[in-house]
Amino acid sequence: MPDNPLLPNRKADQIRINREEDVQSGLTSGLEHFRFHHRALPELDLEEIDLSQSLLGKTVRTPILISSMTGGTAEAETINRVLAQAAQETGIAMGVGSQRTGIEHPELAYTFEIRKYAPDILLFANIGAVQLNYGYDIDQCKRAVDMIGADALILHLNALQEALQPEGDTRFSGLAQRIEQICRQLTLPVIAKEVGWGFSEQDIRLLQNAGVTAIDVAGAGGTSWSQVEMHRLTDPRKARVAAAFQDWGIPTAEAIRNVRRVAPDLLVIASGGLKNGIDIAKCIALGARLGGMAGPFLKAASQSVEVTLDLIHEIDDILRTVFFATGSRNIPALQDHKIFEEGGHGL
Amino acid sequence: MPDNPLLPNRKADQIRINREEDVQSGLTSGLEHFRFHHRALPELDLEEIDLSQSLLGKTVRTPILISSMTGGTAEAETINRVLAQAAQETGIAMGVGSQRTGIEHPELAYTFEIRKYAPDILLFANIGAVQLNYGYDIDQCKRAVDMIGADALILHLNALQEALQPEGDTRFSGLAQRIEQICRQLTLPVIAKEVGWGFSEQDIRLLQNAGVTAIDVAGAGGTSWSQVEMHRLTDPRKARVAAAFQDWGIPTAEAIRNVRRVAPDLLVIASGGLKNGIDIAKCIALGARLGGMAGPFLKAASQSVEVTLDLIHEIDDILRTVFFATGSRNIPALQDHKIFEEGGHGL
Amino acid sequence: MPDNPLLPNRKADQIRINREEDVQSGLTSGLEHFRFHHRALPELDLEEIDLSQSLLGKTVRTPILISSMTGGTAEAETINRVLAQAAQETGIAMGVGSQRTGIEHPELAYTFEIRKYAPDILLFANIGAVQLNYGYDIDQCKRAVDMIGADALILHLNALQEALQPEGDTRFSGLAQRIEQICRQLTLPVIAKEVGWGFSEQDIRLLQNAGVTAIDVAGAGGTSWSQVEMHRLTDPRKARVAAAFQDWGIPTAEAIRNVRRVAPDLLVIASGGLKNGIDIAKCIALGARLGGMAGPFLKAASQSVEVTLDLIHEIDDILRTVFFATGSRNIPALQDHKIFEEGGHGL
Amino acid sequence: MPDNPLLPNRKADQIRINREEDVQSGLTSGLEHFRFHHRALPELDLEEIDLSQSLLGKTVRTPILISSMTGGTAEAETINRVLAQAAQETGIAMGVGSQRTGIEHPELAYTFEIRKYAPDILLFANIGAVQLNYGYDIDQCKRAVDMIGADALILHLNALQEALQPEGDTRFSGLAQRIEQICRQLTLPVIAKEVGWGFSEQDIRLLQNAGVTAIDVAGAGGTSWSQVEMHRLTDPRKARVAAAFQDWGIPTAEAIRNVRRVAPDLLVIASGGLKNGIDIAKCIALGARLGGMAGPFLKAASQSVEVTLDLIHEIDDILRTVFFATGSRNIPALQDHKIFEEGGHGL
Ligand SMILES: Cc1cc2nc3c(=O)[nH]c(=O)nc-3n(C[C@H](O)[C@H](O)[C@H](O)COP(=O)(O)O)c2cc1C
Ligand SMILES: Cc1cc2nc3c(=O)[nH]c(=O)nc-3n(C[C@H](O)[C@H](O)[C@H](O)COP(=O)(O)O)c2cc1C
Ligand SMILES: Cc1cc2nc3c(=O)[nH]c(=O)nc-3n(C[C@H](O)[C@H](O)[C@H](O)COP(=O)(O)O)c2cc1C
Ligand SMILES: Cc1cc2nc3c(=O)[nH]c(=O)nc-3n(C[C@H](O)[C@H](O)[C@H](O)COP(=O)(O)O)c2cc1C
Repeated sequence: MPDNPLLPNRKADQIRINREEDVQSGLTSGLEHFRFHHRALPELDLEEIDLSQSLLGKTVRTPILISSMTGGTAEAETINRVLAQAAQETGIAMGVGSQRTGIEHPELAYTFEIRKYAPDILLFANIGAVQLNYGYDIDQCKRAVDMIGADALILHLNALQEALQPEGDTRFSGLAQRIEQICRQLTLPVIAKEVGWGFSEQDIRLLQNAGVTAIDVAGAGGTSWSQVEMHRLTDPRKARVAAAFQDWGIPTAEAIRNVRRVAPDLLVIASGGLKNGIDIAKCIALGARLGGMAGPFLKAASQSVEVTLDLIHEIDDILRTVFFATGSRNIPALQDHKIFEEGGHGL
Repeated sequence: MPDNPLLPNRKADQIRINREEDVQSGLTSGLEHFRFHHRALPELDLEEIDLSQSLLGKTVRTPILISSMTGGTAEAETINRVLAQAAQETGIAMGVGSQRTGIEHPELAYTFEIRKYAPDILLFANIGAVQLNYGYDIDQCKRAVDMIGADALILHLNALQEALQPEGDTRFSGLAQRIEQICRQLTLPVIAKEVGWGFSEQDIRLLQNAGVTAIDVAGAGGTSWSQVEMHRLTDPRKARVAAAFQDWGIPTAEAIRNVRRVAPDLLVIASGGLKNGIDIAKCIALGARLGGMAGPFLKAASQSVEVTLDLIHEIDDILRTVFFATGSRNIPALQDHKIFEEGGHGL
Repeated sequence: MPDNPLLPNRKADQIRINREEDVQSGLTSGLEHFRFHHRALPELDLEEIDLSQSLLGKTVRTPILISSMTGGTAEAETINRVLAQAAQETGIAMGVGSQRTGIEHPELAYTFEIRKYAPDILLFANIGAVQLNYGYDIDQCKRAVDMIGADALILHLNALQEALQPEGDTRFSGLAQRIEQICRQLTLPVIAKEVGWGFSEQDIRLLQNAGVTAIDVAGAGGTSWSQVEMHRLTDPRKARVAAAFQDWGIPTAEAIRNVRRVAPDLLVIASGGLKNGIDIAKCIALGARLGGMAGPFLKAASQSVEVTLDLIHEIDDILRTVFFATGSRNIPALQDHKIFEEGGHGL
Repeated sequence: MPDNPLLPNRKADQIRINREEDVQSGLTSGLEHFRFHHRALPELDLEEIDLSQSLLGKTVRTPILISSMTGGTAEAETINRVLAQAAQETGIAMGVGSQRTGIEHPELAYTFEIRKYAPDILLFANIGAVQLNYGYDIDQCKRAVDMIGADALILHLNALQEALQPEGDTRFSGLAQRIEQICRQLTLPVIAKEVGWGFSEQDIRLLQNAGVTAIDVAGAGGTSWSQVEMHRLTDPRKARVAAAFQDWGIPTAEAIRNVRRVAPDLLVIASGGLKNGIDIAKCIALGARLGGMAGPFLKAASQSVEVTLDLIHEIDDILRTVFFATGSRNIPALQDHKIFEEGGHGL
């Protein structure tokens, strides 16, 4: 994810591999163990349901997030534009990919500048947290935010991915403190985000103390970045090392509950292996405020705004139907004991 | 299930799809987790066993129900007649399909009028509960009952199905109160029935307070009406939305226990994915008074009265054998700790 | 199993079906859930191990039982003779099949008379317990015992099988009391035995009060007599009824533990789905004194005494190796916490 | 494993069978049930991680052990040499195969003498513990140790394997006491080791009292020596007896925890079905100090020192990545609640 300026085509590589190779985690999101309490008598009219919410200063019309993905190349610019137009039309949230290229190569910043297409959406800037140990400070953070008129800054954490890359940025000590500094200095909210391995209880405590506003769990169960790296590595031994981590990480459902248990006041965004509207609904019911997907939006945006809109409408329809069939008028209602773990107890 | 008069061939559609397509729920009835306590020494003679019971004013000779299915077309009339003749000969209970067509198109009422073929059976009228929010009141209920000389009125609940239909009847708010009115005004017992997604604890409480006499759980595990709708929908996005609900609902075994736990005084009818006499016996052992099946009877009735009788006799033989091998002389005896959940405790 | 004199070739039928058709229960014996505590340091010499025991007045050299199977036809006579010779040479226990034919047709008694080939073995007579409700009393019991110079009388219980047979003997009421009479009147021990569906706690209590000395659990997991009947039945509906019981009964491991829990003083014999010496060893470890097999011995005896001996030696070798690798010098030692249920607690 | 001098080609046999036949246990190591707590914020630099430890007087650079395998033939000498050179270059630990041939045929001792190639590594001598019941005493133990300048002596326990061999050494009584004598008389540490079936609690207590310094659990889940014997046996009945033990033994994960629970002060070495660096890391996290593998090293050493080094580096890279992604600076840190059992509690 972090764009090494020496490797300008890394993003292109990643996108190609994500489209063509099997990069699925060996784990599942864990959401398949959860089921909704069906209501035969919902005592509700379908048209009453209101999925909108006020989030980080913006109104989000339905709790869908287009997860941080791309930027830095001409192709990425097109994808970002299509996504932004669809997000604007439907009132959903969106993030751009890591803006390191845009920061270090100002001539490429235009590939991220989508605010003009989406003046009203909740929009997230994105940089790799570990860059704070490699010279970045509040200045670069502000530049990322300003580049796109973001409502919040995502600092993504990808320690395992860096460890698997030749010459990866693997100095992660003291990072919690540097994140704390950014939280203090930036006037906008900071979101900590994994890239597919979730957060453990100890991570969450560190981040809460550091002052982040939200956590995007990006748990295991979907795209596995060790698998992506495996496909990129040319040294066979290094590729085997990467392959050994296919089953690594904290499944998304578990990661959401970790945050809810450890830091109930943090805003939770869910991503990692969400396959459809049912999965997003489960995440909301588990306590998340938005459910993010990457791959499906990448595929749709490669086609057209219409295809992307169709996907958003499909997810939204499913969400509304879940709300209806569980008798939930709005988001807080769906979060009120509407789901349970099979073989477990209610929630 | 609810017959939209603008779509006179909806019932025909449903029956064709039920026969030709895979409309199975992604869930199972949950009955497969239950096993009977075998008795090597039943201390009983097989011929002593008595499966008859007095139910809602009628005598039912063996606890089998032909679930509500059809009416409204010429083909439906034939099916209803065959079923009624077989029910009369064997003394089992039966329901007709939603009578909306019969009520709104009196010239089609004849397709439901099977009392003449089955003067003695326990017979259920049927209308969609949600119609009470669309203009129906005690008058239409009475007309449904009178049309067939019913012993009770089934109000079926199908919120999820309506939500998946284009222009479905999705105003379900205030419905509990309207059901309560009908319960008060109708001199016959009212039965609340799902169509394949079961009842949750909260639904059961609402229905008990509304004054229903019985609940037909119609749980998940058999026919999935979201799958039926999926096959009927022509808009691909709407079809994908329907497909997302294949695993929805409360499995039949769970739904039966929900009723027994929450409202032990309500009469329970079991349906939803019952495959044979063993499954019906399990439902009885779990506390139901009748076990209903739809699909297998539809198939048999499309052939002949004889085939239908053969099916009823087969189920009855299996029931008797279960009663014998568990040392149960009659229905109350089978309900006395004769079953247990594997990996769980006795019942 | 019970030989209806009107159907002289029923036994021949049973044996053919057992050899040629799939008559396996849909359940497993449950023994696969148990594992032995391996001992790296058994503190024992292999040659010290002593598997012999004194049982019902005889010495059994290794805890293997050839389960009750046959008699009544010329072919059965040969099989019984081969089995008896092999049992005598190896000092194991044996039962003959139901002796009803021998009692009601004295000219066929010779097919059971194997004591001459096996003067020293522990030998069990066999009749169907339900015959006590159809005219049999202490006289017929004595005749069965005397016919073969038996050391004990097995009364087999097969209620479910009778229920599935056209014109089966299905009057099982009052049977416990009649068994009690036989226990009082017969000078030899009485053994109650199922035929493949095991015993529930209530059965065991009745039998203990009736005064039986031992229970052969004959649990579910091996030969399913409902499947055997299914193959014999010519009426397709009756065959479907039989087929519905393929998953019926109490698995052998569970049945053994039922007896141990409810009536710890009763002698337990294990049978039902034991596949090899490991399974027999598990039954011993669970508290049985003998492990019986039917099918494998039938197959071996159809070939020769040598093949039968080879089978017995194979089982005995496996038993000795289990005793060695668990550090168990003799049968009581193997019964002292040498096994545990996976996912469960020690024993 | 024990080399019967009358069968000089037994070792050659074993190696051929291990390479060509399926000799896998029917059980798994149990390690697949464990998962690491991922750390998104490891608060650690990858290059800080230090996997070295001081163990039995030597420094081991990374917690990998080449398990005891071979010696006694010319081919074995080559394999041992290659392994030793690779171990020396990478600073890992190594054991030689049973030295009985070397002791009883001094002219073959050279096949074990690898200290010259690996002056600095932690090196284990190896003899079968049961030989102490067949004439061996402190003298032979000393000879084994001196032959290779070992740092410790492994006494391997293989009771089940001996029981399955024709004329195996099956007198295991009193062995605990003889091991105790060796522990007292030998100036070097003694390690008790299974060969693939693990240790039970009672074994561990006996060994702790006998005074061993370490236990190599060699649990079930990898090479099954009953399967190896099965392939060697020519008598079909004996082969069937061996085959019956394919599912025997205590899985490696369980055996490690047995030692940790019963004798927390004993040093634990893990082996048995470890497939890669992730498995070794799990064993370390469960409390072991070294993780041993046999088959993969045999295969690599048959090729070259380079291939062997590549394998060691791959394992070491995986180990370092696990340490990084769990935020563990060194071995004690990985042993501090970094792993948990799925469906179980933390550790
Ligand atoms: C092609 C692609 C590029 C991505 N780039 C970034 C990135 O630059 N920054 C980031 O925080 N996450 C990035 N992600 C991770 C996603 O935002 C998200 O956390 C994760 O992929 C969600 O899991 P899923 O793919 O299983 O839905 C990327 C994902 C994909 C598929
Ligand atoms: C062809 C068909 C038509 C049905 N029509 C109705 C109906 O009009 N009213 C109703 O309450 N249930 C209706 N049902 C649902 C059944 O009564 C029953 O609740 C459900 O199908 C039972 O589950 P099973 O099909 O898994 O046995 C229908 C079912 C089928 C198969
Ligand atoms: C061919 C055959 C005939 C049998 N006949 C009798 C019998 O006459 N009396 C009886 O008590 N059990 C009879 N049995 C049942 C066995 O004794 C035994 O309880 C049961 O088969 C054991 O289960 P298994 O076949 O799974 O090993 C018979 C079994 C077989 C296979
Ligand atoms: C070819 C071969 C030879 C072995 N020889 C010995 C031996 O002589 N002494 C010993 O203690 N273990 C011996 N073992 C067992 C290993 O040291 C080790 O305990 C076991 O194989 C580890 O399990 P794994 O093969 O599943 O990794 C041998 C293993 C193999 C594969």
